[in-house]
This record gives sequence, structure tokens and C-alpha cells, in this order.
Amino acid sequence: MTALPAPVTALAAALGRLPGIGPRSAERLALHVVQSDPALVRQLAEALTMARERVAPCETCGALTEVQPCPICADPHRDASQLCVVERAPDILSLEKSGTFKGRYHVLGGKLSPLNGIGPEDLRIAELDRRLDRQPVSEIILALGGDVEGDATAHFLARRLAPRAVRVSRLAQGLPAGGGLEFADEITLSRAIEGRREMPQ
Amino acid sequence: MTALPAPVTALAAALGRLPGIGPRSAERLALHVVQSDPALVRQLAEALTMARERVAPCETCGALTEVQPCPICADPHRDASQLCVVERAPDILSLEKSGTFKGRYHVLGGKLSPLNGIGPEDLRIAELDRRLDRQPVSEIILALGGDVEGDATAHFLARRLAPRAVRVSRLAQGLPAGGGLEFADEITLSRAIEGRREMPQ
Repeated sequence: MTALPAPVTALAAALGRLPGIGPRSAERLALHVVQSDPALVRQLAEALTMARERVAPCETCGALTEVQPCPICADPHRDASQLCVVERAPDILSLEKSGTFKGRYHVLGGKLSPLNGIGPEDLRIAELDRRLDRQPVSEIILALGGDVEGDATAHFLARRLAPRAVRVSRLAQGLPAGGGLEFADEITLSRAIEGRREMPQ
Repeated sequence: MTALPAPVTALAAALGRLPGIGPRSAERLALHVVQSDPALVRQLAEALTMARERVAPCETCGALTEVQPCPICADPHRDASQLCVVERAPDILSLEKSGTFKGRYHVLGGKLSPLNGIGPEDLRIAELDRRLDRQPVSEIILALGGDVEGDATAHFLARRLAPRAVRVSRLAQGLPAGGGLEFADEITLSRAIEGRREMPQ
């Protein structure tokens, strides 16, 4: 029995390290690559190297950026009195797409997870402290996920920020837009009830 | 609203051209890449270029190979009297894994598909003719898919090969190993009945 040529196996192994790409898709992609236009493959290889070289976390907020500081930190029109804390850099993009928040961001780089050995010192919490010392804000919005670890991180940060004269809020939890009650799980529903808002009459 | 840094968007576009990777996974992969170990990213970029540069179709059979001719064509222990015709180069790997066939291969590079404008001249059929002129074989096994286009290609090749004194066979169609009747569709079942084999008693 013959095997795949070694460079194909090597490529499949490298592709298989990407998230969400299993051994079979990695092999299928590798076979596609060796049979496709060499110019396109070169372009993909260059895009990979280029992206990794040019993009780095913003030294202030931790967002992914080509320039230091990132466009949001550098924008004088953003509201410097509001700081939105997110878990991961891509979360900023989701919030920006919503177009509702006009303040600045701070990326934690994860969430507290004692089971996985992730404590406060593994997150960008010391950076957050230093940033608030340098430039105090009036409100910190914790835009963390609604899972157990997101909850724990939010409570940890709320306690830690208590000594500062700053309002700490958290994203509302409830029904997703366009979603009927039949699709919501019990926890989402109970949070939607707890967080109910009075209607203007 | 801010967008992703340009190199991330460029990488996502390049990744999105790969089969089975939609816009959202492409963006997710690109974001993963810019946040992962630079050495691993460089390794992936090199594996891509390397694989595309080093691997080419075998000039004789069309298999993917680093050397000309490919190891199977060069192997004197393979049975030169049997030629197995497959649609795509990766099909050879599947057949080799089964360990049943000891002859040589010929890759068509596709199947006849008038609707998609793929005719005999788009496949490696002229190469098959020349190869048979040079080195006649006693049996040609058509290992083509069981779909309509595979059927059409098999019948086209059988007619075309008729003038040569060569046995032309086709892979059996029927129940997959380990599969009960409840999982087989009607066409598979009807072909399994048509292709029934007498039991030794």
C-alpha cells in the first residue's frame, strides 16, 4: 500500500492544528491545495504570514490591530468615560457591528476558569487596573458571556472594581431578538423574567 | 464602526476560497491565526507552498507524487496487466487502503458531465489510449462512482475500449460492509439484487 506524498501529509498535519478542522477535512484540504492554482496557494501562504506579522494586540486595550494604539483607542470621538470589558478581541467586532456602544474597550484575553487553571493573573486585569489609575472612567460595562465562567469573571471584576468610584454594569440577559419563547431554555427565560423592564405607558 | 485589520480580512478571503470553508469559519480561522504561535503559522505557510511545489501529477498515471514516475508506476512488483481507472487522484489512496488491487492506476481527472461542459477531451482519456497503445493490459477495472455521471463515464469508456482485446469490468455495487438493509436506499438495493452472487454450497 502506498501513502500520500510526504508534503501532503505534512500540510494535512499543519492544517489539522487549526480549530474545527479534523483529520479528514485536513487531508481533503491538503489534497485540494496540491491540485489547485499555484498562484492562489502562494497567495494564501503569504496572507497567513502577513496577517500574523502585521497584526498584534493593541498595547492599550488588547484589540487586534495593525497600528499602535488601535483605531478605537486613537479615535478622539469615542467616549473616554465608558469602558467595555470583553473576553476576546473578536468580541469587539461583534459589539461594533451592533453600533450601540461609543466608548472604548478592554480585552481580558479569557475568563476565570479555576478548572482549567486560569486565574486573575492570566487575564489582562492588572492592565485594566493600571489603565483606570491613569485614566478613570465613569462606567465599566462587563460584556462577558452568559455562561458560568462569564458569571464568575463578572462577579470577580465587580468586587475588585468596588473601591473605585465607577459604575459597573453588565449586558442584559434575556430573549434574543426575533426568538420566540419556545426556543429559549429555562435559564434564559428565568433571567429574562428577573431582568424584566417596565413598559412606558 | 471599526472593521477587522486588513491583513485579517485578506487572510479570511484567501481561506474562504478553500472547499468547505464558509465566510464565518474563514473569519474564525483568520482570527485564530493572528493570535497563535508565529512559528506554527510560518510552518503552515511553508507546508502550503512546499506541498504545492513538490507534489505534481504522475506523468504516466496522474496520481499525486513527489517523484516521476510515481512509486506505484515505478514498482516492478505491481501487476502490469491490470489497470484500474479512477476519477480523482485521492481515489487511489482509498483503493490502496483496501489492499485488494495489485495492478496499476489511471486517473481520469473527473467524469463526463455534459451539464457542466465536461466532455471526453477534458479527461485524461487520450492519455489512456496512448498508454494502452504502448503497453496493452488484459483487464481494465473502472472504479468510478455509482452516480449518474459515473455510470455515463463507465459506459462511454466501455464502448471506447471495445475494439481492444481487453476485459473491462466495473466495481460491484451493493450493500456496504456492516450496513443493514434498513440503511440502504432503493437504488442500492436494486443494484445489490441485480448483482447477487451464487453462494458456494
